[in-house]
Amino acid sequence: MPPSRKKVFDGKLLKVYKSNIKLPDNRVGYFEEVEHPGAALVVPFFKGKIVFLKQYRAVIGEYIWELPAGKLDAGETPYKCIKREITEETGYEAKNLKKIGMIYTSPGFCDEVIHIFRADCTNKGPRSLDSDEIIDVELLSKSRIKKLFNSGKMPDAKTIAALAFAGIL
Amino acid sequence: MPPSRKKVFDGKLLKVYKSNIKLPDNRVGYFEEVEHPGAALVVPFFKGKIVFLKQYRAVIGEYIWELPAGKLDAGETPYKCIKREITEETGYEAKNLKKIGMIYTSPGFCDEVIHIFRADCTNKGPRSLDSDEIIDVELLSKSRIKKLFNSGKMPDAKTIAALAFAGIL
Repeated sequence: MPPSRKKVFDGKLLKVYKSNIKLPDNRVGYFEEVEHPGAALVVPFFKGKIVFLKQYRAVIGEYIWELPAGKLDAGETPYKCIKREITEETGYEAKNLKKIGMIYTSPGFCDEVIHIFRADCTNKGPRSLDSDEIIDVELLSKSRIKKLFNSGKMPDAKTIAALAFAGIL
Repeated sequence: MPPSRKKVFDGKLLKVYKSNIKLPDNRVGYFEEVEHPGAALVVPFFKGKIVFLKQYRAVIGEYIWELPAGKLDAGETPYKCIKREITEETGYEAKNLKKIGMIYTSPGFCDEVIHIFRADCTNKGPRSLDSDEIIDVELLSKSRIKKLFNSGKMPDAKTIAALAFAGIL
């Protein structure tokens, strides 16, 4: 079969394709591809602790511990995105933002890239959550984070990866 | 708006929904949901090294370092899945399989869960790759893994998370 790419869903966040993709050995494979705008995430330090979110995730029906993150708006750089997101989600302002890594979340079917930053934070101001966000903010010590991780209570892959990039796990 | 769930794509691997989901505070939010069958992954030890894959990922157009993993077949337990996948992908057989963690890869839009195991491996036999898989197998030492991770050459989130659960990062 020849390579091809057919859009089967054009959503607000995601686009989905049925694709026949040419592989390096010239065979062609069938893939269902999810196109995602990409995202940025930050490991925010404040007075020796890490600014964490307890966030409700409607798609899995659970509250989970996560680091602040958000998807890139059209034309937005990861740096600008995460500077905006941390204040929207937590009220903290990020200083000394530095990129420390990047990840693919599901490279088998989705092109999502997450750019990972660290930051020092200044004092907390007001937040401005999106209408579908349910988020509590909590400062966690490194030892509490390790305990939550070791007891299986921190199941978010991007958060675990970012903690590894920051040298916390 | 009332809660609702409309299937917009019914694929071989993925199902996609446009959903209005009731949140814990009784508001209703709009979400694009990707339904995934779930997967299992293994950190396979062999003579003090880790059995790694260099795998071509057509959706991102790159070869990346990954741990052996695969999606659950219908009705298959994670344990049975990973016992099958490691032999198919690497030729090694897994002994002493033990669950060490679980992750959500993209809880904002996808319900994918990956069950994470560790295993000791016996000698290598033949592999049986799927027709769309391009995979090289390599034994990596812990120090090589750390170097690859620290230099940004190991961007797969599930792999990083599994290495953290196994105490390697």
